[in-house]
Amino acid sequence: MKKIPVTTDDRPKEECGVFGISTPHGDGVAELSFFGLFALQHRGQEAAGIAVSDGSRVRLHKDEGLVSNIFTPEVLAPLSGYHAIGHTRYSTTGSNAHRNIQPFVIETMHGPLAVAHNGNIVNASALREELLHRGFGLTATSDTEVIALMLAAAGGRTWQERLERTLPAWKGAFSLVLLAADEVIAVRDPWGFRPLSVGRLPHGGWTVASETCALATLGCTDIDEVRPGEIVTLRGAEIDRIQALTPSGQPARCTFEFVYFSRPDSFWDGQNVHHVRQRLGRELAIESAIDADVVIPVPDSSIPAAIGYSAESGIPHNDGLIKNRYIGRTFIEPTQDMRERGVALKFNALRENLEGKRVVMIDDSLVRGTTAGPLVKLVRDAGATEVHLRITCPPITHACHFGVDMGHDGDLMASRLSVEEMEAHIGADSLAFLSLDGMMRAVGQSEGYCNACFTGEYPIAVHEAQAKLSFEGAIA
Amino acid sequence: MKKIPVTTDDRPKEECGVFGISTPHGDGVAELSFFGLFALQHRGQEAAGIAVSDGSRVRLHKDEGLVSNIFTPEVLAPLSGYHAIGHTRYSTTGSNAHRNIQPFVIETMHGPLAVAHNGNIVNASALREELLHRGFGLTATSDTEVIALMLAAAGGRTWQERLERTLPAWKGAFSLVLLAADEVIAVRDPWGFRPLSVGRLPHGGWTVASETCALATLGCTDIDEVRPGEIVTLRGAEIDRIQALTPSGQPARCTFEFVYFSRPDSFWDGQNVHHVRQRLGRELAIESAIDADVVIPVPDSSIPAAIGYSAESGIPHNDGLIKNRYIGRTFIEPTQDMRERGVALKFNALRENLEGKRVVMIDDSLVRGTTAGPLVKLVRDAGATEVHLRITCPPITHACHFGVDMGHDGDLMASRLSVEEMEAHIGADSLAFLSLDGMMRAVGQSEGYCNACFTGEYPIAVHEAQAKLSFEGAIA
Amino acid sequence: MKKIPVTTDDRPKEECGVFGISTPHGDGVAELSFFGLFALQHRGQEAAGIAVSDGSRVRLHKDEGLVSNIFTPEVLAPLSGYHAIGHTRYSTTGSNAHRNIQPFVIETMHGPLAVAHNGNIVNASALREELLHRGFGLTATSDTEVIALMLAAAGGRTWQERLERTLPAWKGAFSLVLLAADEVIAVRDPWGFRPLSVGRLPHGGWTVASETCALATLGCTDIDEVRPGEIVTLRGAEIDRIQALTPSGQPARCTFEFVYFSRPDSFWDGQNVHHVRQRLGRELAIESAIDADVVIPVPDSSIPAAIGYSAESGIPHNDGLIKNRYIGRTFIEPTQDMRERGVALKFNALRENLEGKRVVMIDDSLVRGTTAGPLVKLVRDAGATEVHLRITCPPITHACHFGVDMGHDGDLMASRLSVEEMEAHIGADSLAFLSLDGMMRAVGQSEGYCNACFTGEYPIAVHEAQAKLSFEGAIA
Amino acid sequence: MKKIPVTTDDRPKEECGVFGISTPHGDGVAELSFFGLFALQHRGQEAAGIAVSDGSRVRLHKDEGLVSNIFTPEVLAPLSGYHAIGHTRYSTTGSNAHRNIQPFVIETMHGPLAVAHNGNIVNASALREELLHRGFGLTATSDTEVIALMLAAAGGRTWQERLERTLPAWKGAFSLVLLAADEVIAVRDPWGFRPLSVGRLPHGGWTVASETCALATLGCTDIDEVRPGEIVTLRGAEIDRIQALTPSGQPARCTFEFVYFSRPDSFWDGQNVHHVRQRLGRELAIESAIDADVVIPVPDSSIPAAIGYSAESGIPHNDGLIKNRYIGRTFIEPTQDMRERGVALKFNALRENLEGKRVVMIDDSLVRGTTAGPLVKLVRDAGATEVHLRITCPPITHACHFGVDMGHDGDLMASRLSVEEMEAHIGADSLAFLSLDGMMRAVGQSEGYCNACFTGEYPIAVHEAQAKLSFEGAIA
Ligand SMILES: Nc1ncnc2c1ncn2[C@@H]1O[C@H](COP(=O)(O)OP(=O)(O)O)[C@@H](O)[C@H]1O
Ligand SMILES: Nc1ncnc2c1ncn2[C@@H]1O[C@H](COP(=O)(O)OP(=O)(O)O)[C@@H](O)[C@H]1O
Ligand SMILES: Nc1ncnc2c1ncn2[C@@H]1O[C@H](COP(=O)(O)OP(=O)(O)O)[C@@H](O)[C@H]1O
Ligand SMILES: Nc1ncnc2c1ncn2[C@@H]1O[C@H](COP(=O)(O)OP(=O)(O)O)[C@@H](O)[C@H]1O
Ligand code: SF4
Ligand code: SF4
Ligand code: SF4
Ligand code: SF4
Ligand SMILES: [Mg+2]
Ligand SMILES: [Mg+2]
Ligand SMILES: [Mg+2]
Ligand SMILES: [Mg+2]
Repeated sequence: MKKIPVTTDDRPKEECGVFGISTPHGDGVAELSFFGLFALQHRGQEAAGIAVSDGSRVRLHKDEGLVSNIFTPEVLAPLSGYHAIGHTRYSTTGSNAHRNIQPFVIETMHGPLAVAHNGNIVNASALREELLHRGFGLTATSDTEVIALMLAAAGGRTWQERLERTLPAWKGAFSLVLLAADEVIAVRDPWGFRPLSVGRLPHGGWTVASETCALATLGCTDIDEVRPGEIVTLRGAEIDRIQALTPSGQPARCTFEFVYFSRPDSFWDGQNVHHVRQRLGRELAIESAIDADVVIPVPDSSIPAAIGYSAESGIPHNDGLIKNRYIGRTFIEPTQDMRERGVALKFNALRENLEGKRVVMIDDSLVRGTTAGPLVKLVRDAGATEVHLRITCPPITHACHFGVDMGHDGDLMASRLSVEEMEAHIGADSLAFLSLDGMMRAVGQSEGYCNACFTGEYPIAVHEAQAKLSFEGAIA
Repeated sequence: MKKIPVTTDDRPKEECGVFGISTPHGDGVAELSFFGLFALQHRGQEAAGIAVSDGSRVRLHKDEGLVSNIFTPEVLAPLSGYHAIGHTRYSTTGSNAHRNIQPFVIETMHGPLAVAHNGNIVNASALREELLHRGFGLTATSDTEVIALMLAAAGGRTWQERLERTLPAWKGAFSLVLLAADEVIAVRDPWGFRPLSVGRLPHGGWTVASETCALATLGCTDIDEVRPGEIVTLRGAEIDRIQALTPSGQPARCTFEFVYFSRPDSFWDGQNVHHVRQRLGRELAIESAIDADVVIPVPDSSIPAAIGYSAESGIPHNDGLIKNRYIGRTFIEPTQDMRERGVALKFNALRENLEGKRVVMIDDSLVRGTTAGPLVKLVRDAGATEVHLRITCPPITHACHFGVDMGHDGDLMASRLSVEEMEAHIGADSLAFLSLDGMMRAVGQSEGYCNACFTGEYPIAVHEAQAKLSFEGAIA
Repeated sequence: MKKIPVTTDDRPKEECGVFGISTPHGDGVAELSFFGLFALQHRGQEAAGIAVSDGSRVRLHKDEGLVSNIFTPEVLAPLSGYHAIGHTRYSTTGSNAHRNIQPFVIETMHGPLAVAHNGNIVNASALREELLHRGFGLTATSDTEVIALMLAAAGGRTWQERLERTLPAWKGAFSLVLLAADEVIAVRDPWGFRPLSVGRLPHGGWTVASETCALATLGCTDIDEVRPGEIVTLRGAEIDRIQALTPSGQPARCTFEFVYFSRPDSFWDGQNVHHVRQRLGRELAIESAIDADVVIPVPDSSIPAAIGYSAESGIPHNDGLIKNRYIGRTFIEPTQDMRERGVALKFNALRENLEGKRVVMIDDSLVRGTTAGPLVKLVRDAGATEVHLRITCPPITHACHFGVDMGHDGDLMASRLSVEEMEAHIGADSLAFLSLDGMMRAVGQSEGYCNACFTGEYPIAVHEAQAKLSFEGAIA
Repeated sequence: MKKIPVTTDDRPKEECGVFGISTPHGDGVAELSFFGLFALQHRGQEAAGIAVSDGSRVRLHKDEGLVSNIFTPEVLAPLSGYHAIGHTRYSTTGSNAHRNIQPFVIETMHGPLAVAHNGNIVNASALREELLHRGFGLTATSDTEVIALMLAAAGGRTWQERLERTLPAWKGAFSLVLLAADEVIAVRDPWGFRPLSVGRLPHGGWTVASETCALATLGCTDIDEVRPGEIVTLRGAEIDRIQALTPSGQPARCTFEFVYFSRPDSFWDGQNVHHVRQRLGRELAIESAIDADVVIPVPDSSIPAAIGYSAESGIPHNDGLIKNRYIGRTFIEPTQDMRERGVALKFNALRENLEGKRVVMIDDSLVRGTTAGPLVKLVRDAGATEVHLRITCPPITHACHFGVDMGHDGDLMASRLSVEEMEAHIGADSLAFLSLDGMMRAVGQSEGYCNACFTGEYPIAVHEAQAKLSFEGAIA
């Protein structure tokens, strides 16, 4: 029987969280990796792995499931060593599943190498073809294996040298954490698409993680971003940073990390995510003011924006929807009964807070747009006299090629319909999106960000960014 | 290796959610039970079961885990029938585990009988002894088996008659859902300790659930409470309600359902839980006003109260803590590193919203009181200049014997320390609890509620309420 | 997808092996139970359990699968105590599965009681009805629960007294092992249908098991049969034996234990099983002599009989068929290809030993008779010029009601067809069965055995023996 | 808790069974692979896999466990296609486990390639180093990956050409089955160490398997050996055979396949294994005649030799030992009690057949020699007056480097002790081994066989055969 998720998933999907740690003492390296990944769990909930090196050998455990299910005390016990990396990922489809779980570990002439990757190399298909034509055999279908094998084959006396020679070939988004026999190396693409930060552990050593929330959980100090194009080496008590590639003239941080992905307590580019989201709400209140009685968020992502919208507009903020916290891992097909009532499995409305009210409902983004209509109806059925939908970013009109799965261009509601058409389709009394400028004002920057999914202006030429699906080549 | 949960759990534990459904058509009865239990998941996350009757035979599936993990399409497929009940429970410890998962199903001279129970029969030990002395053999260690066997042995021509004759013997809290060959029966103790409501299904038939949020999820109309002492029979399109026991002169609904347990979108005693929680916050603001810059909730339970406190006091509301959503199912022992920093695994502070601010932090209750101190420190370390802790109920000084596991009296912080001592121990600039009167004002009633854990005035004599642990008798 | 076993199982099925142990020292009681059950594995391969008492509490572990898969060191570790019983069973079908796995453990007014049972109580349905009418609720669908509950409710100061008062009610086959808080009790029905023996452990204490092969594996001395109608109590270093019921005037040991079930190294009624099987072969050679070139067994059950036939007849013995040892736990549906060639998945022929030869093929019994034809064809296709099938017992014409599952009367080939018809149907050059007298000569007794499946003369009136299937009553 | 097998395994271990199939129709290709592997299960019981190609893509399923446990109908269903290969293997130790399960599948510039391998490439370490130095990264620690990657990187227009160019580099034993997008290719090393045979399927297409017993199970005709150095291509209805390498001047079939490994119903080099084993028994009777009363085999491997010994010597043959059929997958540590009595868990003696008798006990081989002593004692304790141990091959004095794991030289009893010393150590009244000549007479050949483990004369220079363990390099 095929498993069909309970709700067609109308959300963008991040593909990964990465983590690395190197200590002089080797105490609890696997446990700390576990806690680090646990704090990155929201970046990928389908599979996870940890690889540990004791100075010469690498031990690996990876599996499908949540971090807390995969790593029991029995599983962690043998993972002893001084250095470790970890990975949590969104989805591993089909029979590929097990092969594509990370970290990806190989033996090379220079010793073991484990790779954990967040992002998407847009020219991976071409690089893969190159490897195949040089006679390599590839066991997985991911760009991570391409990265690993290119490094294994590169010239240079150290992994850092080999990275410096290989980095120029990789076009796209990559926040990488590598584990060698006696060091952990973090690298970020020169555009700086995806976040990556380092911090000093309270009891000695260094750690690196996709988001600072993981570093905060471990009690790190001296938290700093890995710079675009930088190679950071963690070796016990030492840290070594080299600017390997000139950061791209046009840096391209993913704005969407602020809008949706990152945990509210994370920092990026000097900004706290929760704070930026409040400002997104404020900007929206300024740009798209409306007379109303209550501002409600679509939980959880839009709670900070609703707080900001309320503060700016003076319209009181309250909860209007309760979300079932256990949503997300259910594969029972709804009965006809259930299907008719749309989003009921995920959300219930709070009539007390909505009845007779003109409601401003804040959501972070519209992707496929399939849940917005039912949500508006749910709120209206609970007695709201007006429902005004406000979105904390511009219409998403183009697919992302830099590590976020939003489906193809054609799947995106805003690529097919105008705002008016969307408003009618959704059945809202009004629908407004935050402008690109408004969004960037909230972020506090006007430059250095990727906004391709809103504008179609890809920081890396689109013709290079085609190939992703052709990967699913010969091994199904 | 023993599994030790990541955080000593400083929260009260509900023991159960119950569910029942009867349809004339039999379409998707098991699936609807699944969705019903899924909406009750917060009432118990360790084990669940569904029993279905096709009119003559009862089929059962129960296991440890979350509802969404236990019930796959393969498991649900054979559970066909017209009537069903379900159960989700908090904890099943030790080797007893499997035997004590509900529904509990027996064959009787009157056909099959399945029982799902939320609550605690305080005289169960004595009733159990009676059964043993009548020569019965018992296979489990729960009061649910006592209930089932007493019903099987009772006189009367129908299950309703047998219930009427047996109910008077049961002292304590019981919200029961029974499945017989061709009907579902819901019963509530005459004190009305735990919630239980019925509703009409949109496509025919009736359903009953611990909380109305499950009925709302299924799209029910005509939602009504099962009254204390009432027996409600669901039989396809028909419903039959009889007042079997005079409701106790002193009804005793559990106030703590409003304070902490129930889902915010549920209704009880005519009140919406989210709404009551907002009022708890308002009352607290009135009783314990303080000059401050921001009101923050301890998420998720105290979000509505923080909204209410803010509205009443005029102090702006904001998020100050981010909670890891995946907490709760982790069994890795924190390293020394991690332990030192207390609650870090569960919460991170939002410095942006706290720095330089005088903070009012709202939490629903203090039980063991082990997390409040670390939380105050976390907020202070994030730059708060003052931290004032406000609790939306009175000090909990007595253990509950009516279905809530708060530990023994001695485990309760407030049973050992005065408010001043707690304030000092926790390290808050001030600590205040809502008064009993304030709490009841928020609930909107001054009578008819159990407040024993706050007052020690047990609605049922304490000497009867002793026996629970002696159960763990002969079968370990 | 439904799981269909690879070969329609044309074999009689034993329902159980039972085991018990009591030691003064408590060393490795669960481990010894494991090894005992491991030696009884052939008596039931679908589920197993061990219950251990430490003098006051009983701990239990039971599950589906082979003994060696269920009991890992982790599972055995907490099962510490002085006394233990174990059970391995044939099949647990449907959703009943888990509930019917033994030992069955209850708490009673006299403390814990665990029951492991081999056999079938023919009046169990009536006894069950009695219990139901006394108001009992039953959780399983087995006669074992009836036994346990009747004992719990019986008068008497000791389990021995309660047994004495209850035994007269049980008609049928029962080799029981009971575990109480501080003793193990073994009982055998007055007909003595199923085997049960006790032995002294080399390092102190006593043990009881369905077959002596388990006692031999544990190094026991003083091995002796539990007599029909006897109650044997094992209590540390002590053993206590009382003849509770006069052995039935007409004892009725199951002859089929010698023919097929028991392990060849077991002893029963003073006879070694392998030795009896050799004599079955000898008697067959005498009764049904034929001129031939080679005698081959259908492995494994008929190897000793083929040795005996060869010794008696002077026709050389050799292997003619190789059996895949991993058969039995496969659920892949054979393709059309495979089905056409019948028994190929289980047996291949040894052409070298068969080509051009007149073959006598020995098998122990014909039940449904579906494999005999394909086997004859397999041997003929391998070049045998003649195939003479010889069966080491008489035609099975009646179903067993005493613990062996041969299907219903109508399923039995010999209940529908004469020997000539069977010969033709199977395609053998000749077919002969051992006579009842010949079989009993091989056993060395003419009295005291049940031969009901061959003769229809049930030692216990058939009208009592009807009810078995009506059990599958209200709980599916 | 560490799992320790119940008996120190005193048996040589084969490392693999391989299988391949190609059909024009594609009906049930995965199911037929399942049945093929099921018939090869005795060659490796720890892990198995099947890879299927539908003409362009390869789908794979592999896991730890028995074939019949791994492949359920659900697992086989998606494995549709025209061509398939399968593998079953002995052991996969440590954390390497999952990575080293076969088939090993890679994508290459020439499409997908899956490899299943039986044997051992003695210069694999050197070849692996070569690959590493060419910049390859390796994910597993097996010689199978070396094979796959060398083929991927080889020049040539077809897999056959690439094989022809790569084969000369591989020194050692390899019976390989490869799966490409649209064909299955079988190759055997020029020494012909390990068996490999092809056959025509009854409903169209071809199949290849380590042993003919698998071909017989599938009903194949035209069964023929893949010749040493031959490349056999199966492509639907077509078969194509090319002699790629001149068979080695000194062919070196593994004699031990006849003595111990192969299933008795398999054929090799024109000889039936059961037949050869009977002749081994006959030769032994001739070389080492002794006056005795009964000949018993150590079951199961020595049953045919005991038949032969008996036939030649005239001493009657009978069973003397019963082996527990479920041995082999048990990990419970025997208690002190049990350990003292040695082999009791695996074997019980049949006193009836041994008491007062002079016994000739036949076993196939002595490796570590730890079980022979306890077996002799067991037989003697059962009343045998004399026990004469006869072994159907010469003393094993040297480790195998061609795919059989017998431990290191020093582990081998016969490498440390003379026959007299072994006789004394074992406690037999006499001990005799079959001579090399006697063994080869039974095999029917004097040339073309490897006997290195008996003679130390390795068919391939020993210095090349060292490296095996150094594999466990950088990835633990
Ligand atoms: N522990 C957390 N607390 C609050 N928000 C979180 C947490 N972890 C992730 N998030 C936020 O959750 C949002 C996604 O969750 P939510 O809106 O509830 O689900 P959906 O993906 O269905 O929109 C993201 O914005 C992410 O920043
Ligand atoms: N889906 C939901 N949405 C919001 N709150 C919920 C939901 N389900 C349960 N709750 C509430 O969650 C609270 C408990 O959660 P929380 O405070 O996050 O955890 P803790 O038990 O650690 O205090 C309860 O008050 C309950 O009412
Ligand atoms: N360890 C053992 N060694 C030899 N025979 C055994 C063993 N265990 C059980 N048996 C015998 O195996 C027989 C059943 O096995 P077999 O004939 O191989 O299978 P089937 O049930 O298919 O006929 C029984 O006669 C039983 O006595
Ligand atoms: N189905 C089978 N029937 C008979 N013998 C088999 C079968 N499968 C494998 N064998 C043989 O079993 C032997 C190994 O089994 P056995 O002697 O019982 O175990 P051990 O490995 O402990 O010596 C090998 O000689 C092999 O040829
Ligand atoms: S396209 Fe959108 S989601 Fe993708 S990196 Fe750019 S901003 Fe982020
Ligand atoms: S004692 Fe407290 S928790 Fe228990 S029922 Fe009464 S109010 Fe509820
Ligand atoms: S009927 Fe047959 S199988 Fe049953 S007990 Fe009697 S002899 Fe045994
Ligand atoms: S050394 Fe022995 S086991 Fe190895 S291949 Fe040669 S004969 Fe076979
Ligand atoms: Mg959201
Ligand atoms: Mg809370
Ligand atoms: Mg048989
Ligand atoms: Mg052997």
